[in-house]
Amino acid sequence: MEAKRDMGHLPLRERNKQRTIRQIVEAARTLFREVGYERTTMDMVAVKAEVSRGTLFNYFPTKMVLLLPFAGDLYEQYVQPAVHKYLETQPEMLDVLRFLFLKIGEQILTHPDIEQALRQEFYSPQSTMNAVTNRTGFFDMLQALVSYGQQRGEVRTDIAVEKLAHYIGILYLSLVRPMGDGVRSPSGYTAEVETLLAFLRNALCS
Amino acid sequence: MEAKRDMGHLPLRERNKQRTIRQIVEAARTLFREVGYERTTMDMVAVKAEVSRGTLFNYFPTKMVLLLPFAGDLYEQYVQPAVHKYLETQPEMLDVLRFLFLKIGEQILTHPDIEQALRQEFYSPQSTMNAVTNRTGFFDMLQALVSYGQQRGEVRTDIAVEKLAHYIGILYLSLVRPMGDGVRSPSGYTAEVETLLAFLRNALCS
Repeated sequence: MEAKRDMGHLPLRERNKQRTIRQIVEAARTLFREVGYERTTMDMVAVKAEVSRGTLFNYFPTKMVLLLPFAGDLYEQYVQPAVHKYLETQPEMLDVLRFLFLKIGEQILTHPDIEQALRQEFYSPQSTMNAVTNRTGFFDMLQALVSYGQQRGEVRTDIAVEKLAHYIGILYLSLVRPMGDGVRSPSGYTAEVETLLAFLRNALCS
Repeated sequence: MEAKRDMGHLPLRERNKQRTIRQIVEAARTLFREVGYERTTMDMVAVKAEVSRGTLFNYFPTKMVLLLPFAGDLYEQYVQPAVHKYLETQPEMLDVLRFLFLKIGEQILTHPDIEQALRQEFYSPQSTMNAVTNRTGFFDMLQALVSYGQQRGEVRTDIAVEKLAHYIGILYLSLVRPMGDGVRSPSGYTAEVETLLAFLRNALCS
């Protein structure tokens, strides 16, 4: 499989589709930032993206789906750089995990629009978070952190890096769900993170 | 909250609804057992349950949803009693977990109809398994096993029983998903279970 597909080699129809999707995502991003998620309507997205309502709903059946790229932006803008900066101080791997989870809590989960959206879609916050994390390279980050921990001799090497990263990611996502339901407070979130870290401290050591 | 609701105290409409649902579930159970999941149609379920197609689809939008009580039957008939019998030999808690996971693999996941159904609904096997496990008392079983492990001094007591059971359940469900996608073989499943147990061995000890 090619690592990266050259847009020039795609058939015209596919290129048009990709361009339309980019236009819609860009329009939604701008509106969410300027007008807010709540007050943005699908009609406004269609007008700004210069596509018909039919086309918009064909690619994005709900407004919620359009929030994912926005959440991805927040992750790339606020979470990733902060983690990379923190890594320069050569902290313990578990401290990096704590830092990562708390940053996501601060910068993404408490963002009023996202909390609102997760609350509305309370049946599927986990699949939503899955989609966010798949797109943002959250699992790649976890793999990098597991490798980092192994290099420091803090993390077991008898289980594959991808597997350990998967376990950590799954457990973290299951912790995010209740917050989406609006049941948890930020302090509840911090406590959940600490409990998970206590569990992982034993699980990850060799 | 009452532990058990007395049907006699429910309004007539609610009682009728409950009875209709029971009739449908019973009809589907019987058909799946006698005719097989694949060859059972929603029309056959409606006829056997003596309800209209409209009523049937109102309560159960897909045939897949009707498979849940059937999977629950398999769990109660083949998995639970086997685990209880195994517990009489006073095994280590992790050996009971292995026994439980492998029994589910043998008796439920490899059931041709369920594998087929999970394969068809490959977008949501996890939510399906969640529904199965919620109804069958799978999480209750995990809680009981964690307590059992604590009594034997094998399991940490610094994290709440419910929390540990939740972590174990979430990790197990994430392992079930790929099998639903048809990517894994039974031997792959066994290997996944062993890796998870290696992870849990450290995670659970104090």
